[in-house]
Amino acid sequence: MKKIEGNLLIAQGGGPTAVINQSLAGAVIEARKYRQVKNIYGAVNGVNGIVNENIVDLSCETDNNLLQVAATPASALLSTRDKPDKKYCGRIFEVLKAHDIRYFFYIGGNDSSDTLRIVKEFALGENYDIRTVHIPKTVDNDLVLNDHTPGYPSAARFVAEAFVGLDQDNRSLPGVYIAVIMGRHAGFLTAASALARKYYDDGPHLIYMPERPFSPDRFLSDVKEIYGKYNRCIIAVSEGIQDKDGVSIAAKLADVVEKDAHGNVQLSGSGSLADSLKDHIKHNSDITRVRADTFGYLQRSFRACASRVDQVEAWEVGQKAVQYGVLEDRDGSVTINRIGDYAVEYGLAELAAVAGKTRKMPDEFINEAGNNVTAAFLDYLRPLLGEGFRGGERLRAKNIRKKINK
Amino acid sequence: MKKIEGNLLIAQGGGPTAVINQSLAGAVIEARKYRQVKNIYGAVNGVNGIVNENIVDLSCETDNNLLQVAATPASALLSTRDKPDKKYCGRIFEVLKAHDIRYFFYIGGNDSSDTLRIVKEFALGENYDIRTVHIPKTVDNDLVLNDHTPGYPSAARFVAEAFVGLDQDNRSLPGVYIAVIMGRHAGFLTAASALARKYYDDGPHLIYMPERPFSPDRFLSDVKEIYGKYNRCIIAVSEGIQDKDGVSIAAKLADVVEKDAHGNVQLSGSGSLADSLKDHIKHNSDITRVRADTFGYLQRSFRACASRVDQVEAWEVGQKAVQYGVLEDRDGSVTINRIGDYAVEYGLAELAAVAGKTRKMPDEFINEAGNNVTAAFLDYLRPLLGEGFRGGERLRAKNIRKKINK
Repeated sequence: MKKIEGNLLIAQGGGPTAVINQSLAGAVIEARKYRQVKNIYGAVNGVNGIVNENIVDLSCETDNNLLQVAATPASALLSTRDKPDKKYCGRIFEVLKAHDIRYFFYIGGNDSSDTLRIVKEFALGENYDIRTVHIPKTVDNDLVLNDHTPGYPSAARFVAEAFVGLDQDNRSLPGVYIAVIMGRHAGFLTAASALARKYYDDGPHLIYMPERPFSPDRFLSDVKEIYGKYNRCIIAVSEGIQDKDGVSIAAKLADVVEKDAHGNVQLSGSGSLADSLKDHIKHNSDITRVRADTFGYLQRSFRACASRVDQVEAWEVGQKAVQYGVLEDRDGSVTINRIGDYAVEYGLAELAAVAGKTRKMPDEFINEAGNNVTAAFLDYLRPLLGEGFRGGERLRAKNIRKKINK
Repeated sequence: MKKIEGNLLIAQGGGPTAVINQSLAGAVIEARKYRQVKNIYGAVNGVNGIVNENIVDLSCETDNNLLQVAATPASALLSTRDKPDKKYCGRIFEVLKAHDIRYFFYIGGNDSSDTLRIVKEFALGENYDIRTVHIPKTVDNDLVLNDHTPGYPSAARFVAEAFVGLDQDNRSLPGVYIAVIMGRHAGFLTAASALARKYYDDGPHLIYMPERPFSPDRFLSDVKEIYGKYNRCIIAVSEGIQDKDGVSIAAKLADVVEKDAHGNVQLSGSGSLADSLKDHIKHNSDITRVRADTFGYLQRSFRACASRVDQVEAWEVGQKAVQYGVLEDRDGSVTINRIGDYAVEYGLAELAAVAGKTRKMPDEFINEAGNNVTAAFLDYLRPLLGEGFRGGERLRAKNIRKKINK
């Protein structure tokens, strides 16, 4: 097998996660083992740093610092929301060529995979030898061909941990509580709230995901039903919930619709969806205590309850990417496949097979009414949270006999 | 010393914390050692459970379950927002008498201390022997005569942990980010965000507390100044910020002002303050990426980053309360005083000395401009967070030479 000699470049793109730097450190430390890799570079701010040649030399980072950085959330190489078109990819390719980059790794969602695919086309057109490997990450868990995606298990554990406390809080001071959780198209992260349940009446009692049409009337009657039963109701709602015509509920409610470079409506960084749902209940029921929170950016970059399984796998996909690219001379997108309970193996898919596609919650993970998850989903997520996760405990004491209010 | 024989009643009131059940378990397990304590009862839903005789017998709880409950956030005996007036306290006293309660412990904020004071007056009026001891808790850290209050260190650690991730996130994808944090009158919890800083340009860059008048104009110019310097700005804002006339900014902005039984405006459980501050920046600057989150109920009941120091102290104030009441035959409010770096001792203050008073951030903890904390505050809070807290790490790699964009 022919070994290409030259420099290696790695970059990080899109929304940060609690473990994306594990992939960076895993790749850099693996890359140091190979003679054909001369310098190990990092692009600052993803593809934006490539076209502007804002590139740092990672060859001289200490192992210790890389391990410290691995345990730090968000993108140590900084990130970007730029979504390169063909022309932009051409400029990326020119910079790669100028710096003799022969191995290019991009840690990101499915957009990153597409960028690599186009860059690779430019290289093929000029007979320039380069290996391009996509390293997956996204808290949304929406990459196709993967059992799950690094970043998701840690964000899921944050959501589940949060609901353990919030449910106890809601039991202490009863009322309706709504939490809006990230997930533009896929409900995986919102669904993770279900792992907080231990006793039969633990919340979340209702879970709304983008995969099922959201009806404000149905929502109201669901809440009233639960409230009638438990005198409280705690609800997880995906920021990406849509009506039956596929129109985002948040966008319908927002006064000003802000879109990012990808044409996506800005969903996070605002409490308006949560507040609107709260007002909907307040105005259409006699429930007095209704509260709503938006988890916002906390959930994707919270270090203190990162999943150990996620940390290890994120490191491994970085390491595997380098093995596939440098050792096996292949291009593609690293995948995670579940082969045991619990065990995974890694694979390499075609870049085009992952790019531009969005995975959603499979039907067997959502209940028939479309307002909760199934036992199959709990089985799917439980091992990903890592060790040490457990539900809240309760007193078991019995009531004494009344003497005055008989 | 005369030993009163009879039953013991414990209750929890007000907003939950991550460690309030440590105090419950600490008190119950200590109380089992004393012969003069016959049955150990718990009131469900605080004072509300007392007047309704919704009381459970904690004598038969296993030690193991009490330890599990201690590690669970929020109030295991459930809570209440009832603020008893004199008549209500009279009804409490009648129930205590009917059940031969001779030791009454109430875990809560300064309102709870006042309730105990009034109940004790009824008892004195009827020559009924009873010991009433207040066990402190509040995430707001606003009890007088205390170095700090159980519940605060864990909530503070959540806020600091959150800002470690959020600051890295904001570095990765620059813009303005605002987080609204609990604290109606005192800025202690908002100020805790400062502990996340490690490098000179780490955020939060600005911290607004209720102790200093908030001016929207000044806020805007502060943000523009930081943004001009770092091309980003991350801000911690207390939900209780007020204008120069003492009017709550959140109340000024809210369409409908909801008040609780204590006459307090509802500040948490809504994203409106955060969204208003975000809009203020968007409409009055050319900064395009502005995001705002409200930490909401997450911060007071999040188990996964509870401070070990806080857990231990919360247990100890429960244990000390029983020692003061049962062993030393005294009434009062348990206090925590710092006597070393870091060491504390416990004391017992008069119930009236704590009741109805609110402690604020001392002047030496706030910078002159009123938009940040001082080194003295960092020194105050650091030991309370417990072991294992640290800032985020960065790559130290240097830029390579540009070849195209020279």
